[in-house]
Amino acid sequence: MSGTAALAAMWRNAYRLKQNNTRTFAAAALSLPRVVILGTGWAGARLARDLDCKTSYDLTIVSPRNHMVFTPLLASAAVGTLEITSVIEPIRYLQPDLGNPKNHYYAGKAKGVDVAKKVIVCECADGHEYEVKFDKLAVCTGALGTTFGVPGVDEHTFPLRDATHAFRIRERLLTNVALASVPSRTREERKKLLQTVIVGGGPTGVEFAGELASFIRETMRKAHPEACADMKVTLIEANELLGSFDGSLRKYAASKLTQGGVNIVKGIVQRVTDGAVELKDGTTIPTGLIVWSTGVGPTPFMSSLPFMLSKGGRLAVNDRLNVFDKATGEVCADVFALGDCASNSETPLPPLAQVAEQQGKFVAKLLNAEAREGGFRLDESASTFKYLHLGSMAALTTGEAVIELGKKDSGGSLLTMTGISSWLAWRSAYLTRLGTWRSRFHVAMDWLTSMVFGRSLSRIER
Amino acid sequence: MSGTAALAAMWRNAYRLKQNNTRTFAAAALSLPRVVILGTGWAGARLARDLDCKTSYDLTIVSPRNHMVFTPLLASAAVGTLEITSVIEPIRYLQPDLGNPKNHYYAGKAKGVDVAKKVIVCECADGHEYEVKFDKLAVCTGALGTTFGVPGVDEHTFPLRDATHAFRIRERLLTNVALASVPSRTREERKKLLQTVIVGGGPTGVEFAGELASFIRETMRKAHPEACADMKVTLIEANELLGSFDGSLRKYAASKLTQGGVNIVKGIVQRVTDGAVELKDGTTIPTGLIVWSTGVGPTPFMSSLPFMLSKGGRLAVNDRLNVFDKATGEVCADVFALGDCASNSETPLPPLAQVAEQQGKFVAKLLNAEAREGGFRLDESASTFKYLHLGSMAALTTGEAVIELGKKDSGGSLLTMTGISSWLAWRSAYLTRLGTWRSRFHVAMDWLTSMVFGRSLSRIER
Repeated sequence: MSGTAALAAMWRNAYRLKQNNTRTFAAAALSLPRVVILGTGWAGARLARDLDCKTSYDLTIVSPRNHMVFTPLLASAAVGTLEITSVIEPIRYLQPDLGNPKNHYYAGKAKGVDVAKKVIVCECADGHEYEVKFDKLAVCTGALGTTFGVPGVDEHTFPLRDATHAFRIRERLLTNVALASVPSRTREERKKLLQTVIVGGGPTGVEFAGELASFIRETMRKAHPEACADMKVTLIEANELLGSFDGSLRKYAASKLTQGGVNIVKGIVQRVTDGAVELKDGTTIPTGLIVWSTGVGPTPFMSSLPFMLSKGGRLAVNDRLNVFDKATGEVCADVFALGDCASNSETPLPPLAQVAEQQGKFVAKLLNAEAREGGFRLDESASTFKYLHLGSMAALTTGEAVIELGKKDSGGSLLTMTGISSWLAWRSAYLTRLGTWRSRFHVAMDWLTSMVFGRSLSRIER
Repeated sequence: MSGTAALAAMWRNAYRLKQNNTRTFAAAALSLPRVVILGTGWAGARLARDLDCKTSYDLTIVSPRNHMVFTPLLASAAVGTLEITSVIEPIRYLQPDLGNPKNHYYAGKAKGVDVAKKVIVCECADGHEYEVKFDKLAVCTGALGTTFGVPGVDEHTFPLRDATHAFRIRERLLTNVALASVPSRTREERKKLLQTVIVGGGPTGVEFAGELASFIRETMRKAHPEACADMKVTLIEANELLGSFDGSLRKYAASKLTQGGVNIVKGIVQRVTDGAVELKDGTTIPTGLIVWSTGVGPTPFMSSLPFMLSKGGRLAVNDRLNVFDKATGEVCADVFALGDCASNSETPLPPLAQVAEQQGKFVAKLLNAEAREGGFRLDESASTFKYLHLGSMAALTTGEAVIELGKKDSGGSLLTMTGISSWLAWRSAYLTRLGTWRSRFHVAMDWLTSMVFGRSLSRIER
């Protein structure tokens, strides 16, 4: 055989092989079990990322958001230290196999689940309804902020749980500065517009208060000294700031925030009106922006599902994260609930990003193993979810954070960090936790440019 | 005198000197003439940047926008090649002396001008009215997009003249993709949602069409192949694309756009409805997004002013850019009109960024010279505005642009550029034209990250 002929034969064979592969692949694609994920939060995004949807499963994601939000950095994004687009990652970049025609991302919300027929009814923003079939279903639809029944919260406060919220807070903050700074405003109106009240002293409330104080001190003092003088940040908490942290860290955090210019008020909010927060003790705090961040509660969607609920109103799950049929009480082996929308009554976990993410990772591992082992289950010990608490962190201001590592509850050693080292650790930890090199690069660049050139001050009306 | 005593004396003197300086400065500040600029577009921002508001003038800017928009890059921002925040620059960063308490940026719009009293009445977004006094006034309030009386344009189309517009177009585009891609849509609905129509073949229309085609080809084909196949870009122009360019460039541009996937339609729009563009020849083009970009016209504000209007309805100006009193026809030496809102009937200029910017630069020079020469006017030849056309450019797609340099009208040599070199020249020209190192860095980084990591695909609801 001449060299040319050999080469031609090689090409032909390669081409046939490719054709065969395509055929096999196409045939296989038809028969792969379909995993449907509802939601693109920490749990859903991690499950989507880790699931083998190249060769083991067909993946369908249904969510109103086509991206995942890196929630711990939202507080920074709301004051312009980071761009909001830098802390969100398109789900198609997190799971590139969504570019494969057998996998899908569908915009919309689930309206109902038929477990017997294995069908979900979904609805788009424009009211268009459609059905999605599943073999395995993961409900990762998250929770809603809770108002504790305080009147006026829904109408007059801003949550900080999503990219949209960060946009709205940024816009309102800069609008207030703009409105307050025009001539012939009374001193009173001006002070009202320039006071921001944050209700809730958990990590989100504390980080936003700290970021806002840094923004005032570092950005506004230079660019807009007149407004700066009247800008106030008030943080209201009924109990203790950062309640889940160790006592020494709580005290440290409170003193650092106070030093940074945050006015910490211990009190219970009784009522919120347009322009004021009223406390139980009779105090009224006039304000132009109220950020409400006091924990999460169940959504109407959870109780509409044919699954049992836990005491707190979330979807009850077992230690494999399977839900229970509401009618029979039996385990639904093909339906999982993860993240803030789920709760195991025996081992309840806090609504944290790391819990949701570990659950997403766990279910992906479970399903991947199941597919690889030809339908056999994982061995019992590996197939139960165990949460590993990696520690808690909260940034207080530029150059200050608190970090708590170790096992407080189990009597193990507790490692705490404060000061510049903890702040650097906070930044590096979040940088490495970001889902893609794309977001890591964007966030690192934003930190650099905010430092060198200052934060963005442009108010874009929407 | 001992060394220590000498050092102490030096410090005391330095301190006294500083105190004296401060006093002189404070006294001087009270007596500086006040320049008021209405608007923060190309003309207003350039004037604000170049005006000596450190020692010669007190500056007050009134505008609903606290930033300048780098309009030529809006088309890129609308499809996510650039971040929208990268193409806008806070006015406080463009003119850092706004941090000085004697200078002001006030949010709001001017409602009326009293030339005799030298007072402007302004209004904030929340309805609050306030007065601003001026010694010199520069009206740089821009123009509005014109609809040519076509029914439905205001209700159903998107302009692309501002950062908000770029946001809205980006959101609608990605929403259309999301809505079109869910199951059980008819083929017809799907195709309608995925077709974008651009009306107007000027530089903005052409650049947006080109950017959108690149976005489909480079970003969507990989991340979302199913949607990509049905995405269409249609560009409607009644006459010729890029009408102001040389014939060879016009042909080149049309062929490159067609190659890139843009469907060019020659036609006159008769009516726009929710979801379709109807042409005079009876054709109906179904569409999910209509971008309207057919030139600019006067605003109601211009005709409400006590100044004479030119034929086109803009503020009539002389060759010093001064307006004329409507009642007496006399020149108002202290009132200038610049940019799209102004027109000199004898030497009318097109509504271009470079015209507006050169006018801003000219008025700043005029005012600065007047202040420095102790109230004397500049000599006659230097005090008339002469426009220098620096050339025209339009990007067609990644790696393709058309550039025209030289003086076509005056019979001089015409230099044209096409291909990759023109595209690189386009990018470098705009990069150097950006107002601050901050924006230059942001835009350069965005170009880099879009290339390496892909454009942003996240749809953020507002």
